[in-house]
Amino acid sequence: KHMTRITVAKGDGIGPEIMDATLAIIKAAGAKIEIDEIEVGEKVYLSGNTSGISNESWDIIRRNKIFLKAPITTPQGGGYKSLNVTTRKFLGLYANIRPCVSLHPFVDTKHPNMDLVIIRENEEDLYAGIEHQQTDEVVQCLKLISRPGCEKIVRYAFEYAKQYGRKKVTCFTKDNIMKQTDGLFHQVFDEIAKEYPDIENEHWIIDIGAAKLADTPEAFDVIVMPNLYGDVMSDVAAQIAGSVGLAGSANIGEQCAMFEAIHGSAPRRAGQNMANPSGLLQGAIQMLTHIGQADIAEKVQNAWLKTIEDGIHTYDIFKEGTSTKKVGTKEFAQA
Amino acid sequence: KHMTRITVAKGDGIGPEIMDATLAIIKAAGAKIEIDEIEVGEKVYLSGNTSGISNESWDIIRRNKIFLKAPITTPQGGGYKSLNVTTRKFLGLYANIRPCVSLHPFVDTKHPNMDLVIIRENEEDLYAGIEHQQTDEVVQCLKLISRPGCEKIVRYAFEYAKQYGRKKVTCFTKDNIMKQTDGLFHQVFDEIAKEYPDIENEHWIIDIGAAKLADTPEAFDVIVMPNLYGDVMSDVAAQIAGSVGLAGSANIGEQCAMFEAIHGSAPRRAGQNMANPSGLLQGAIQMLTHIGQADIAEKVQNAWLKTIEDGIHTYDIFKEGTSTKKVGTKEFAQA
Ligand SMILES: CC(C)[C@H](C(=O)O)[C@@H](O)C(=O)O
Ligand SMILES: CC(C)[C@H](C(=O)O)[C@@H](O)C(=O)O
Repeated sequence: KHMTRITVAKGDGIGPEIMDATLAIIKAAGAKIEIDEIEVGEKVYLSGNTSGISNESWDIIRRNKIFLKAPITTPQGGGYKSLNVTTRKFLGLYANIRPCVSLHPFVDTKHPNMDLVIIRENEEDLYAGIEHQQTDEVVQCLKLISRPGCEKIVRYAFEYAKQYGRKKVTCFTKDNIMKQTDGLFHQVFDEIAKEYPDIENEHWIIDIGAAKLADTPEAFDVIVMPNLYGDVMSDVAAQIAGSVGLAGSANIGEQCAMFEAIHGSAPRRAGQNMANPSGLLQGAIQMLTHIGQADIAEKVQNAWLKTIEDGIHTYDIFKEGTSTKKVGTKEFAQA
Repeated sequence: KHMTRITVAKGDGIGPEIMDATLAIIKAAGAKIEIDEIEVGEKVYLSGNTSGISNESWDIIRRNKIFLKAPITTPQGGGYKSLNVTTRKFLGLYANIRPCVSLHPFVDTKHPNMDLVIIRENEEDLYAGIEHQQTDEVVQCLKLISRPGCEKIVRYAFEYAKQYGRKKVTCFTKDNIMKQTDGLFHQVFDEIAKEYPDIENEHWIIDIGAAKLADTPEAFDVIVMPNLYGDVMSDVAAQIAGSVGLAGSANIGEQCAMFEAIHGSAPRRAGQNMANPSGLLQGAIQMLTHIGQADIAEKVQNAWLKTIEDGIHTYDIFKEGTSTKKVGTKEFAQA
């Protein structure tokens, strides 16, 4: 099997620790990867580059096409742009895939039967970043939805459901208020749903949809939605499944793909060998499947599950009763 | 004690049933109210009035200043405007107050200790309703945030906390992405928080804030946020506390106030004597307090609590074990 060259960024805060753990685990499992490491995030921002990344690093990312990224810290103020968002737009990563599965009885949860995937539109909506001050007292932000954008993400969701044998795709919008923008998303959903008669489909207004998700997440399978709703709902789903620290995410485009944890860089936990590497590891597992190393991905997933099931837990999911041993980042990776 | 003249709209779907129940209950408790009933919603919409309300009805609402409104159905398409949103804007009802309290062990919930109030900005944000089609394939919606709007709602939240002896006010925004609009909301929050040194304050990015809310709602007290987030988070909080069917809401302005259930008109349940009138009743209880009849409000609240505690439940909250008797709308009101 040939090697795949990937770009790796260790990021900020707990980033380097969880990246080292993740790389150690997947290499031990036999991942056929070669690594180009780039520097992104805080250091680059503070050196005066408000994008948090150099042109040389962009070149490497585009050349390798596969990017494994640890969380980064964006400094407050000063016109700094979120590198997450820039990367998603710059590389055309239109689909953000976030599986949220509970690991009952091994990880404490009130929702033992949940197993859902949030498919989040990743380029448009309020994330377009178009904001301006209209008067002294009024500011505005543009929410932008395009038909091609809706078509790509909705089709992705149905294709995903088909490929992974999932039975239902749900759509969340607020189209009783935003009749044109969210209305378009809903309309495209209805159109494309017709092409997949074997997959159930439903739409909920996001308010009551979110309420159902928080209350009975086991009722959902695949959920597709505009960018900002997907951001919020994926944190909700991951957290009630067990912890935002357990969820990884794939950002998929036509040419390139980026894989990451869904959580942030947790600067206060940095350098203490405390952080749970599971989120980034889950991103890496999605990456391995994506680059055709599904056998390795499965091996890593099984080893990870076994460790969690053995009760070997980092502080964030440690609980007397369900856990057996509280470990640090390195010991968890070792296990 | 003098009579207060209020405007009542029975609305659509389950509206008339829950309004009749609510009025019967509060009158039996001695509410000193006189009623002007107006017709709003579906019938008015379908008669060709896209606003769902006549000018004469507006005059009555403005004259009486106090408006008790049942849920209404807005027909799909055809340029119909949500009457909820129109009323809030037209009457300047800038604050939407939504208490979410669990009634453990009487109503089934996974979150027995929750007791929070969501204070939702009620006029601005994406609800301004400014949408347009820019090209064949691109539509836009304007998110609008103003400094006076932020100041009014944030101050309201802190004053509310002070008045009701609540210890903490939390703010949710997504200001790591929307630095100007949500950034302004957050900034005003920080400014006004300083004027209330005895009340704790904190800010969460809405993604992780929502995750915490869905996972450990007992960690929150008062939460203030922009309009759309408040819409979604209040349904989440109400549902995990027990049911969206149990929550009422007050919409408060300088001159006028409107009181309602947080749920919709549930057309499929209409006319079957099934619906739970509790949401609208909770709105009516807030109304009675607002118009200086706090003693009656308390009487109604106690009778309501007693009924719930006795396990006399409508279908939506009925559960073998916790409930003792399944009743209809009328029987619930009677009890
Ligand atoms: C860090 C932030 C810009 C990002 C987002 O809002 O998308 C994060 O919350 C996520 O969900 O990946
Ligand atoms: C019916 C709808 C327009 C309304 C809203 O979005 O505000 C409702 O969901 C609410 O929360 O009162």
